Amino acid sequence: MERLECLFCQSQYPVNVHSPFCPQCREPLFVSYAPRKRTFFLEKNSAVEKFLDFLPLSKFDTKFSLGEGNTPLVYLERLTKKLNLRSIFAKNETQNPTLSFKDRGTAVAVQKAVSLGLRRIGTISTGNMAASTAAYGARAGLETFVLLKEGTSSQNILFAGIHGPVLITVEGDYGQLFYESFSLGQKCQIYFMNSVDPFRIEGYKVTGFEIFLQLESQAPQYIFVPLSSGGHLIGLMRSFLDLKQQGLVQHYPTFVGVQAQGCSPLAQAYASGSLKFNKIEKVRTIAHAISNPNPPGGKIVLKMIQDNRGIIIAVSDEEILGAQKMLAEEEGIFCQPDSATTLAGLIKLTQQIEFQDKDKIVLVLTGSGLKNLKGLDTSKMKFHHASLTTVEEKIIALLTFQL
Amino acid sequence: MERLECLFCQSQYPVNVHSPFCPQCREPLFVSYAPRKRTFFLEKNSAVEKFLDFLPLSKFDTKFSLGEGNTPLVYLERLTKKLNLRSIFAKNETQNPTLSFKDRGTAVAVQKAVSLGLRRIGTISTGNMAASTAAYGARAGLETFVLLKEGTSSQNILFAGIHGPVLITVEGDYGQLFYESFSLGQKCQIYFMNSVDPFRIEGYKVTGFEIFLQLESQAPQYIFVPLSSGGHLIGLMRSFLDLKQQGLVQHYPTFVGVQAQGCSPLAQAYASGSLKFNKIEKVRTIAHAISNPNPPGGKIVLKMIQDNRGIIIAVSDEEILGAQKMLAEEEGIFCQPDSATTLAGLIKLTQQIEFQDKDKIVLVLTGSGLKNLKGLDTSKMKFHHASLTTVEEKIIALLTFQL
Repeated sequence: MERLECLFCQSQYPVNVHSPFCPQCREPLFVSYAPRKRTFFLEKNSAVEKFLDFLPLSKFDTKFSLGEGNTPLVYLERLTKKLNLRSIFAKNETQNPTLSFKDRGTAVAVQKAVSLGLRRIGTISTGNMAASTAAYGARAGLETFVLLKEGTSSQNILFAGIHGPVLITVEGDYGQLFYESFSLGQKCQIYFMNSVDPFRIEGYKVTGFEIFLQLESQAPQYIFVPLSSGGHLIGLMRSFLDLKQQGLVQHYPTFVGVQAQGCSPLAQAYASGSLKFNKIEKVRTIAHAISNPNPPGGKIVLKMIQDNRGIIIAVSDEEILGAQKMLAEEEGIFCQPDSATTLAGLIKLTQQIEFQDKDKIVLVLTGSGLKNLKGLDTSKMKFHHASLTTVEEKIIALLTFQL
Repeated sequence: MERLECLFCQSQYPVNVHSPFCPQCREPLFVSYAPRKRTFFLEKNSAVEKFLDFLPLSKFDTKFSLGEGNTPLVYLERLTKKLNLRSIFAKNETQNPTLSFKDRGTAVAVQKAVSLGLRRIGTISTGNMAASTAAYGARAGLETFVLLKEGTSSQNILFAGIHGPVLITVEGDYGQLFYESFSLGQKCQIYFMNSVDPFRIEGYKVTGFEIFLQLESQAPQYIFVPLSSGGHLIGLMRSFLDLKQQGLVQHYPTFVGVQAQGCSPLAQAYASGSLKFNKIEKVRTIAHAISNPNPPGGKIVLKMIQDNRGIIIAVSDEEILGAQKMLAEEEGIFCQPDSATTLAGLIKLTQQIEFQDKDKIVLVLTGSGLKNLKGLDTSKMKFHHASLTTVEEKIIALLTFQL
């Protein structure tokens, strides 16, 4: 059986899903593996099963899976030309069962829950993670608890609520609730598979393995990832550490974590060269899915970014919405504002870094545009009007080029 | 080069994307292939490329693809038990690039457009097809025209409009506009890839081939498909005709087309044993995506269903919403009401048909629940309230079983 490990003090602990933080350092624990040669099972259909040898699961039961992962890596030819770069790819995580990357983590954590005999799961989230946890909880027949922040939008509640979890609106400091949920979970035997849960993070590694294989067993030079609590970026970074350890990649990619300027504790710390960050008091961004003012994985992210020569930057809401529009209009991909931070970050970085011709750049698009329609409205779109008799004339007048 | 063929009079015509109906019979034309042995290219990543030998494309350019298809076939264990059946599967088409099955058809039609040197595409749709066509048009850099019905919801406009097509609201009979769009297309050189476009329909065959392979090279006994204009069902039926012709399947599945009672012209015709249907004057259903009152592929569907011993049934909005809830709560899948007709139809059919133990039943879930939130609201969900200090007590009171 695998153990959990603290990256700071190197202490190891037996697995306890209710205690995912180091008792000494107060930082998230990660799954620790004995070093050995590991294998891909590429003949398997399930994305998780393909990489089971790299995951803390002894088996994978499709009964608890919704067919997560196996998402496309799409070459963005038009954007690549527009930005005068060599090759930009989108890893389109919006094509997951609940339309976000969270499903990969939830899928692994739920397998773990079942294998440990746990029958209750929960989450502290009002967005993508709540929907994902509720969906997988329903699929696995587990009693599922979604603890909501007061004032959560009815749409976000709906995306989780449709799966029939226990919905509890909790008044008070939501950040504090995150930490308190684990003792609550211990008492009530509820596995709170929150943002930096060690098994959830292992699930995110699968995305990295897929990118590697989709690029014909090569690592890209850059991987841009929206950055909030840190779990997703940490998982992706761990996947390429695994590949490096297995001798499968020659170089380690430059990871670029992108935050929204209105909530950028880690970008601020990175800019000042610090390995500690300050909690943000007032969050102001349209990118709700990455607006964690006090990211539980923050210190680890700063350390991993420093150890592996990564970058953290912040982009404005205006840049985010511009990038979202550009992805939709140039490449036909409609992602959440949060996901569009990756393109906004790339555009920003082209002003600071000289990208090379050989550079393959991957943008990880984390969630569907349908999940957050704020910032978009049809009043900004241009409409034309016609009747059955005038529509031909109208169209002819609108044609922009002659054939 | 392939030709187009009328299933009624067997006449053949050269390909003209602006003339997809038989001039004599007024029915949709289909792609006609010379009989020969065909091959799967399973080593390919793209779903379309895997089955290129069965499609009217001489090559496939990933530049115009968004990574459509390759969707999971999920075994629904909990529902299977609940309904006391042997094995129900969901083919989850919500995991396509624009969250519906339409992408498979659009992907093939857009490849065709590019190969024919066409630079303008269009659609008569206010829902999933509009979003899909606009997305692929953007991706391929084609000038794209979306002709909207007056009064289309701003959300539906948004899902297409985000990709920057020309949006034209057209006053008048929308059904008439569908037929008039082809002459309009001929004049303005716009390829209107509407619901029963022959190349779009070929794209839907890929879903059938995937189901066959996912069931370990077997045909299921039943395939339930939401039924509106007819294109999707026709495409799926054609895929298994192809497999039969190639000698790959022993039996042909029973296809069950499911309509909403509030708009069920084909279910009514089927019930009365007629091969003709009457246009519906007043549409009344929550399942907007399958509410075509005068389906252009209707006569063909009735013929193909008769020739291949299929079934057409209708289900009520109440049954649809119940099935949608059941899929979400039992299996973690949140689909459109239109998709949930498949489960509602299956439940209805269990009262009329004795299913056998060996029967594999596939429900094709066509689009994401996020696309149509009508009929759902959080006021029907049960909420609990707590504060940081009372949340533990609250949860303990809510636990439904002791460990």
